Amino acid sequence: MKEGYEALNEDTLRGRMGAIAAVADRLGGDPADWQVKEVGDGNLNLVFIVGGPAGSLIVKQALPYVRLVGDSWPLPLYRAFYEYQALTRQAARDPGSVPAIHHFDEAQALIVMEYLSPHVILRQKLIRGERVDGLADFLGKFCARTAFRGSELSMASAEKKADVALFCGNVAIPAITEALVFTDPYYAADMNNHTEGLDPVVEKLRNDVALKVEAQRMLQGFASNTETMLHGDLHTGSLMCTDAETKAIDPEFAQYGPMGFDTGMLIANLLMSFFSQPGHRSGAEMTGMQDWILGVIGDICRVFDAEFRHLWVTERTGMLYPKALFEDQGHDSAPACDRVLRDLWADAMGACGIEMHRRCLSLAHNADFEAISDPALRAPLEARNLMMGRELVLNRFDPTTPARIAEIARRHNEEDFL
Amino acid sequence: MKEGYEALNEDTLRGRMGAIAAVADRLGGDPADWQVKEVGDGNLNLVFIVGGPAGSLIVKQALPYVRLVGDSWPLPLYRAFYEYQALTRQAARDPGSVPAIHHFDEAQALIVMEYLSPHVILRQKLIRGERVDGLADFLGKFCARTAFRGSELSMASAEKKADVALFCGNVAIPAITEALVFTDPYYAADMNNHTEGLDPVVEKLRNDVALKVEAQRMLQGFASNTETMLHGDLHTGSLMCTDAETKAIDPEFAQYGPMGFDTGMLIANLLMSFFSQPGHRSGAEMTGMQDWILGVIGDICRVFDAEFRHLWVTERTGMLYPKALFEDQGHDSAPACDRVLRDLWADAMGACGIEMHRRCLSLAHNADFEAISDPALRAPLEARNLMMGRELVLNRFDPTTPARIAEIARRHNEEDFL
Repeated sequence: MKEGYEALNEDTLRGRMGAIAAVADRLGGDPADWQVKEVGDGNLNLVFIVGGPAGSLIVKQALPYVRLVGDSWPLPLYRAFYEYQALTRQAARDPGSVPAIHHFDEAQALIVMEYLSPHVILRQKLIRGERVDGLADFLGKFCARTAFRGSELSMASAEKKADVALFCGNVAIPAITEALVFTDPYYAADMNNHTEGLDPVVEKLRNDVALKVEAQRMLQGFASNTETMLHGDLHTGSLMCTDAETKAIDPEFAQYGPMGFDTGMLIANLLMSFFSQPGHRSGAEMTGMQDWILGVIGDICRVFDAEFRHLWVTERTGMLYPKALFEDQGHDSAPACDRVLRDLWADAMGACGIEMHRRCLSLAHNADFEAISDPALRAPLEARNLMMGRELVLNRFDPTTPARIAEIARRHNEEDFL
Repeated sequence: MKEGYEALNEDTLRGRMGAIAAVADRLGGDPADWQVKEVGDGNLNLVFIVGGPAGSLIVKQALPYVRLVGDSWPLPLYRAFYEYQALTRQAARDPGSVPAIHHFDEAQALIVMEYLSPHVILRQKLIRGERVDGLADFLGKFCARTAFRGSELSMASAEKKADVALFCGNVAIPAITEALVFTDPYYAADMNNHTEGLDPVVEKLRNDVALKVEAQRMLQGFASNTETMLHGDLHTGSLMCTDAETKAIDPEFAQYGPMGFDTGMLIANLLMSFFSQPGHRSGAEMTGMQDWILGVIGDICRVFDAEFRHLWVTERTGMLYPKALFEDQGHDSAPACDRVLRDLWADAMGACGIEMHRRCLSLAHNADFEAISDPALRAPLEARNLMMGRELVLNRFDPTTPARIAEIARRHNEEDFL
């Protein structure tokens, strides 16, 4: 733990934030009069909303252990440093996509940032059946821009390699992903849990050697492939939305990894919302919401591809696929872009299927399913989700299209696997 | 340049090495009486053989520029640091495979190491038609052991990631490989040269968009995939042999990269020896040497696979493909090993084909072909080599077997492409 680190509480926060002009000025008035509320509902951190007469802001502080589990699972405070680094890069690569940062204190593992209001966590909105205009446009562009602009398609190699070295220091957080996401779902790991009644499908997955081989092959890529700087945890709980605006938050799992990873994890979480809808509503309301979610997924694919191809033409200044080899020789580089996208989507679909598994089988489950209190209702929905994940992992090298994803989702949505 | 760096010459070497007890004791006698000979015939460094009454050793010092090109191409001295780091890791992962180190001076970019005698550079022996007993056994094991033991199949992830971060500092040397190996061969880059008469084949390769896409796809992997610590420049000029012993030298191009890269580059250089043999001898002597080289390549593949599978069973202690998922569940992990090896060989064959191209088309050519003084004899042999390289790159996902490599080599060896 860093020298002098002290976890904030609602009382100490006033004094410590009051001493920072950049923070105190934004809040205004007397710190004693600020409204302070701890709202951290995640797994890892303290999160305070602080309000004063001049405005409000968020104070996020890392805890030296996994909040979900307790101090038996220590976790380095340096993750706040990587979150800060990631936020600054995302802000540069897709301006306006993440909260503005007002203050960063490395020793206190503390970031003071923009309070997004009236934004709500996307996962909660989806559970409530609320839609967000422009969601796919934001997400497709965010994923394409951060993937492309953080890679050697765009960055100078020396700069990118220095950044890879910097992020290699973030060992503990990727280790969580490596274990909880890629390995634990596929055997009875200690911290796992799954819904009662789901055993037949769980057994099927855990006895599928081909599936386990492919999941580990995905892990091999995740642990070694430093193509671009990932958000690393881009699920619907890391997105905050109004009815028409979306922001990405919480990139403390940032690491260099495969260009398709974020997009795959994101689509997985939307698919889990899709499969869980019958637990939250019925009839036309349900099918309408399901149709809307599949539409969002399809549009994310379309927007991603269009934006990536646009950047390929306009910003391909890195050493990969240089214009000297293609355009300057009178050769179209579109076949090269097609190839890069095909590899990228194969990685995305693999990550997608694995995320669908781990959220029902490993430690950290999703509210989409968890909020369905009756296991007899929840289990068959989770089974559909798990079986679709399997199909995506095993067939991830098939060309990815919106129509294919929708077809697989609708087919699984009709089946009873238990 | 580091403070105090001074390139050695034969005179200053005596004084400076004489002041280092660990060096002076190994040589014995009075430094003034030592025999000092500069023998650096490579592209980048000063290399001295120093002999005294008690023994001999090698003093290798990096120069701050590319020796082959001159001081117009500066090159960081830190590469000696990475060579030293690589040698220590290779010595640990395959004991006895590299020269022993007697002294390292980071500021002087200088390594004092074992003088290998009566060893000769393998490339020279192959040009002379000399064979080496146990060559394939050494090379197959060296490649398999360094690949496996430097990866997260074996290493703890935190240790491996720290090492990746360390080697990310070696930017300038991988940048040479990235440009000279993967990109320059495929267009008329400034420093390129190729044999008179070879134009028709060169044009064919440089107009093959599918080939360029695959070469850049290989570059994308080389630049991003940190699977293991590579030697990085494992050609037949980086191997020193007696009639029955082989050592690997010169790992200053060490970087983290794809597990198949070293093996592919190595096989490429043996194939170039194969194709160039008709320029050095004829009749039964020639066919005998060619048969022997193809035999060595096949045996490298067999030894590599056997050693890798042995390590898979006995040393798979890293986070990838853990026993918890396979053996502990009563599931055979052999299909997983098959899959890893298939991916590895696809990378190896891609790297092999590209190395075969760059050694005839880019800046740094091989003596195998260059020693054939008549371009009318050299060009058709290089053409065979280039066309085989193309086939390997384009079909690298086909299963790699000794028989397949030999078949492609023998088929191209019969053809006239000009």
